[in-house]
Amino acid sequence: MNNDPSQPLSPNELRLIHAWWRAANYLSAGQIFLMDNPLLEEPLRPEQIKPRRLGHWGTTPGLNLLYAHTNRVIRKYALNAIFITGPGHGGPALVASTWLEGSYSERYPDISRDKTGMKRLFRQFSFPGGVPSHCAPETPGSINEGGELGYSLAHAFGAVFDNPDLLALCVVGDGEAETGPLATAWHSNKFINPARDGAVLPVLHLNGYKIANPTVLARIDDDSLQQLFRGYGYRPLIVAGDDPDKVHQQLAAAMDTAVEEIHHIQQNARRGEYPGPAQWPMIILRTPKGWTGPREVDGLRVEGFWRAHQVPIPDATTPEHLRILEEWMRSYHPEELFDRQGHLQPEIAALAPEGERRMGANPHANGGLLLKPLQLPDYQDYALDFPAPGATLGEATRRFGEYLRDVMKLNLDTANFRVMGPDETASNRLSALFEITDRAWMAKTFDYDDHLAPDGRVMEILSEHTCQGWLEGYLLTGRHGFFSCYEAFIHIVDSMFNQHAKWLKVCNEIPWRAPIASLNILLTSHVWRQDHNGFSHQDPGFIDHVVNKKADIVRVYLPPDANCLLYVAHECLNSRNLVNVIVAGKQPEPQWLDMESAIKHCSAGIGIWDWASNDQNEKADVIMACCGDVPTIETLAAVDLLRDIAPELHIRVINVVDLMTLQPHEEHPHGLHDNEFNALFNTDTPIIFAFHGYPWLIHRLTYRRNIHHHLHVRGYKEEGTTTTPFDMVVLNELDRFHLVMDVADRVPLLHERTGHIHQAMHDKLVEHRQYITTHGEDMPEIRNWKWNAAAG
Amino acid sequence: MNNDPSQPLSPNELRLIHAWWRAANYLSAGQIFLMDNPLLEEPLRPEQIKPRRLGHWGTTPGLNLLYAHTNRVIRKYALNAIFITGPGHGGPALVASTWLEGSYSERYPDISRDKTGMKRLFRQFSFPGGVPSHCAPETPGSINEGGELGYSLAHAFGAVFDNPDLLALCVVGDGEAETGPLATAWHSNKFINPARDGAVLPVLHLNGYKIANPTVLARIDDDSLQQLFRGYGYRPLIVAGDDPDKVHQQLAAAMDTAVEEIHHIQQNARRGEYPGPAQWPMIILRTPKGWTGPREVDGLRVEGFWRAHQVPIPDATTPEHLRILEEWMRSYHPEELFDRQGHLQPEIAALAPEGERRMGANPHANGGLLLKPLQLPDYQDYALDFPAPGATLGEATRRFGEYLRDVMKLNLDTANFRVMGPDETASNRLSALFEITDRAWMAKTFDYDDHLAPDGRVMEILSEHTCQGWLEGYLLTGRHGFFSCYEAFIHIVDSMFNQHAKWLKVCNEIPWRAPIASLNILLTSHVWRQDHNGFSHQDPGFIDHVVNKKADIVRVYLPPDANCLLYVAHECLNSRNLVNVIVAGKQPEPQWLDMESAIKHCSAGIGIWDWASNDQNEKADVIMACCGDVPTIETLAAVDLLRDIAPELHIRVINVVDLMTLQPHEEHPHGLHDNEFNALFNTDTPIIFAFHGYPWLIHRLTYRRNIHHHLHVRGYKEEGTTTTPFDMVVLNELDRFHLVMDVADRVPLLHERTGHIHQAMHDKLVEHRQYITTHGEDMPEIRNWKWNAAAG
Repeated sequence: MNNDPSQPLSPNELRLIHAWWRAANYLSAGQIFLMDNPLLEEPLRPEQIKPRRLGHWGTTPGLNLLYAHTNRVIRKYALNAIFITGPGHGGPALVASTWLEGSYSERYPDISRDKTGMKRLFRQFSFPGGVPSHCAPETPGSINEGGELGYSLAHAFGAVFDNPDLLALCVVGDGEAETGPLATAWHSNKFINPARDGAVLPVLHLNGYKIANPTVLARIDDDSLQQLFRGYGYRPLIVAGDDPDKVHQQLAAAMDTAVEEIHHIQQNARRGEYPGPAQWPMIILRTPKGWTGPREVDGLRVEGFWRAHQVPIPDATTPEHLRILEEWMRSYHPEELFDRQGHLQPEIAALAPEGERRMGANPHANGGLLLKPLQLPDYQDYALDFPAPGATLGEATRRFGEYLRDVMKLNLDTANFRVMGPDETASNRLSALFEITDRAWMAKTFDYDDHLAPDGRVMEILSEHTCQGWLEGYLLTGRHGFFSCYEAFIHIVDSMFNQHAKWLKVCNEIPWRAPIASLNILLTSHVWRQDHNGFSHQDPGFIDHVVNKKADIVRVYLPPDANCLLYVAHECLNSRNLVNVIVAGKQPEPQWLDMESAIKHCSAGIGIWDWASNDQNEKADVIMACCGDVPTIETLAAVDLLRDIAPELHIRVINVVDLMTLQPHEEHPHGLHDNEFNALFNTDTPIIFAFHGYPWLIHRLTYRRNIHHHLHVRGYKEEGTTTTPFDMVVLNELDRFHLVMDVADRVPLLHERTGHIHQAMHDKLVEHRQYITTHGEDMPEIRNWKWNAAAG
Repeated sequence: MNNDPSQPLSPNELRLIHAWWRAANYLSAGQIFLMDNPLLEEPLRPEQIKPRRLGHWGTTPGLNLLYAHTNRVIRKYALNAIFITGPGHGGPALVASTWLEGSYSERYPDISRDKTGMKRLFRQFSFPGGVPSHCAPETPGSINEGGELGYSLAHAFGAVFDNPDLLALCVVGDGEAETGPLATAWHSNKFINPARDGAVLPVLHLNGYKIANPTVLARIDDDSLQQLFRGYGYRPLIVAGDDPDKVHQQLAAAMDTAVEEIHHIQQNARRGEYPGPAQWPMIILRTPKGWTGPREVDGLRVEGFWRAHQVPIPDATTPEHLRILEEWMRSYHPEELFDRQGHLQPEIAALAPEGERRMGANPHANGGLLLKPLQLPDYQDYALDFPAPGATLGEATRRFGEYLRDVMKLNLDTANFRVMGPDETASNRLSALFEITDRAWMAKTFDYDDHLAPDGRVMEILSEHTCQGWLEGYLLTGRHGFFSCYEAFIHIVDSMFNQHAKWLKVCNEIPWRAPIASLNILLTSHVWRQDHNGFSHQDPGFIDHVVNKKADIVRVYLPPDANCLLYVAHECLNSRNLVNVIVAGKQPEPQWLDMESAIKHCSAGIGIWDWASNDQNEKADVIMACCGDVPTIETLAAVDLLRDIAPELHIRVINVVDLMTLQPHEEHPHGLHDNEFNALFNTDTPIIFAFHGYPWLIHRLTYRRNIHHHLHVRGYKEEGTTTTPFDMVVLNELDRFHLVMDVADRVPLLHERTGHIHQAMHDKLVEHRQYITTHGEDMPEIRNWKWNAAAG
């Protein structure tokens, strides 16, 4: 052991860690270029080169370097660590490093740790049927990074929440660092409690270039760079250079310092000492892009420039390019690193940690292995009781908040449940949570602050990206959670949802990936109740976006009342490997189903509401279908009106909770079989369908059903403003009066009276308009409306 | 004039600016609460209170303060300035301030500058038929801010690019500052050239709280805060306090300093002196949330706390609450501010700048007024020539890049055109631009850097949010631009697109908002050509998202080749008030239409390709429709195969460029009339439709057409990975072989041969699979395929 802390590596340690790095770089280059001759036992021939060379060299040497040095501190300090690969297309590095440590071959025995395996390792990369160029579900040790950029740091923080012994080494690429989600994720340190959480060690890797440009952070001066990260609350340790020996020593010293500082912070906190917000260490690593690769190709600068980003030798089959490639690969001296059978030399292999401490085998990066089922209270205990359907108002999300409070309570000991939201937990009526926990907050507090505490389990920051990223990281490492968000602004994470759904889809095809808890999103403060906010806050299109993903992965629920919400939420919290989207309003609304009926209704996902229908003994003249809390109210109010206007009319009321029941069974596991669907909707009865979202979604989902000519859908058609709740539905023609007119237009029985009904409804709409523009609120008959058709 | 720079306001100036502020605060509170009695000429009565009190007080006093002080420096330094209101729900402040300066009443004569107008001003706010609680198209001086949070700063920078005399004072809320897009937008200063651009003066307003939480930046220490912003490259000027007199003096001093520093930077740069990257000033303003509002209500802390966020007095009709409200509003002494007719006292009114220097009347904030048409070269000059359809390969975006280069060239003098992209301009084959301009870059450069320059007009940062935000700001202030982006990652700005589309929709309803240039987005590097990148980069769903918005606003084009792209792009660059989305691949692909045919085809938006069809003299047995470059290739290759397999088959080939032609004319201005549609598609002929995106979108758009039973759509069904280009279409069953099988399944003429055709196609697919897994690239017959059916 060397005693100079700035030179922590003995000559032998330096030699060995450098050898590991050379091996990893060699294997990375081999993946991009070679089909055969993996050990370069003979001179390279053009036919040994891949016909299509796809992949990214630029970020690879830096990742290999960091992986080697992380291994070193794992062994030195007996760490439990995972490696998060923020830079885009770091695939070759992680595949190489996990192959070197042996974890790759354990997952993929075919890719053995010998010459045969090495040849397969090279061949499979970016090859049909092979592995992608960035970290992916196929990559051991990955938790979804480096494909779409910007989320690595939030994932890393999510991973270490409630994992006090875990260290997430998170490499942030300097390209990725320019994204918004990454730029704000640095602030996650204000939400890490060193007493109960693990630590993130961010490494900002300044290799200087993106695809074709320098990066912003690589071109500001060191002083600004340090101030920026001190301002973010970190203590930056800078490592910079292009001499491998010096960089190895500097990096080893910085890693030692960082790990020791982290331990110091954690030990103090765990002894109960907490000297103000922690200044966590981070590393800024400035090394050349494509380091150790070709300096120049065809007279153009490559190493240390953006041309190293992708494949540094464009056409490796010309003699000159083949020579450059061979010289480059031989510069790592593979013959010193591997024996003739392709086995890594034992003294190099010995640098890897053992068993599950190898980062490719760490179960935290295959979180399903560690997943403990959530302890759930009996949701039936939270049932809202009421004398009859529609007789009383209730607040669905408030009731659900009480349930969520007790979910939180039951899982406090296992510490594996958190609730995320962009500053809206209380606004979304989930405040009961604060009876049992607080908002996580490590920054300064004042005595009048409201439920802020270092050990809070509600996570709020005004960044949907960060909330979603934290939760993804938390779920991917085997825990449970819940995200509540304004409906319109969930679009902010459309693209993050895409990536998570794609991740889950591929995981389902990989046997060793253990199922994880579902991503549960509650969209409340929805399009129909934005009286404060107006048009900019009105968009129900997230569910349109969601249903484009694989049916195996996505579920969408629109519970019409509190008891239905309880049932649905319980199902979601119990599920695995899904994205569940629940849409439910937070305002006081009529309650329809007692708990027993709610269970029956929601477990079917769709059903006739007998108590609201009067077609029991006759064929229905019209089917009034509804999906969503507000459309359900308007539908029942329309039924109410129709009972007065046309008591002879036989109306069937159908409510849809599980949107995917509408799809054919062949297309979605929750889809009704055609005979079930036809039993509900008939094939020749006019259907007036009142829907929460954009009407086309219903047409799309029922496209293969035999109801086209009879189906009329009302929904949001992008008409909105700051107005009363009822006026919002009127502007979009989803209100009771329009629904009655729709019935009058479509039911033969009413054809003689259509004009009269239209006139009556039109008069009501005029009255409504006059009333709200005078009084600023809805007419009393609207505000105080209660379902009474059953009585009539 | 006072000579102490820390006390720039004379006692009289201080008295007057404070009076203005009181007036603005009074008017803001009045908007939230009052229906009548606007001047408090009599004691407040419950019936004078709005029945529904909607709005946000918390951020308002700070905004009013900043507006008043910006007016002061506009007059002192003869500035041309706009005011960008980042904090959420700052509506009351901007409405109040523009009413005080007179610009509001000029737009809305009904809201006159007297007692009657004041009463209407109060009543309309958050009232049915009135104005929203945040800045909106209705708000004079706004360029789309404060609804969905996070984009104000990028908009501000976009606004000042190429506006050397413009100052954008941009208030950033400390809630908004937590969002990702805002956190990275601070780096926009690296792209501002003080010689040719205007300046942004950011004011970070730390009022400390979001809806129910403190903000992160308000709870870190001042030293960290200053380091953070110095790290971002600013020189922060801190103004903090809760004593109005002191804050007025401090803020006035800070504004003076900031304006003078900005002028200094600009003057140096414009003299040709450029001493390294500019350290632009910014202001950090720390004042209480809901400042000057009620201290306490019902024993609970309000002023300076999150309870001031929304309506600070929840139920203003109880006697106690009414008393608090009246005391609060009278504390501004309206009788000193307004005369009995409600006119603002002349000495206060005189604080406003004059004419277009009033920020509510500044034409930059109604950019259409300043819009100069883009000078466009004749796109026909860029036509790709080729001997016959499908005979040669061409790169559509590369050709288009040459056109774009000359658009850039023709508008260099007017300096009103920029191209944005997240580091992908070259990757997307638009490099011809660099023959005429560079990438904008103010940070450090090296001699080997590639087309970086302070006066570059291509804007690249690895943040789709920032690119989109800059471009929106640039367009909203009356200029033109173009955004090219990877197709999958445009979802990152789904929500920003929503907000811009909603803005345009409302602007169309406001007579004084002049039309602006369209937002043009080119999606290249699309789903079908992600050989390097794989599944994470494959998502064609942005167009699904787009078509949910109002038909008046959105256009979607999928040109099949270079000449069609040229035509379409020209149309888009000439259009106003739209969002145009163009999807076109960047790879070498067959070219189909000479320029004359392309013009004819694209101006119709859809059409039969006669040269590829053989139903001229007979009724078609099958219609092969295609939309998108790759589906067009596969369709024509399938036609080729079918000519061999079944020469007797009459095939009609239809290509769709303008997706919206498929919608009924009643639903979209570009939609075909039913008779036109039926003439193309018949009503009884099998249609095999190969589509670029998710197949449901075609079903949705054609829902009202009479083709359901005959329409079969192939498209992306979320099957993807790293593989060959042709294998991507195979995995999604969009390839020529599957299309042939689809025809065989559906055309009665082929029923006897269906089994044989299936077997033959299946054999080809097996051969394909074997070939790619052996060779890593597509079969030569696929790679070298050329259209030759015409010859056959």
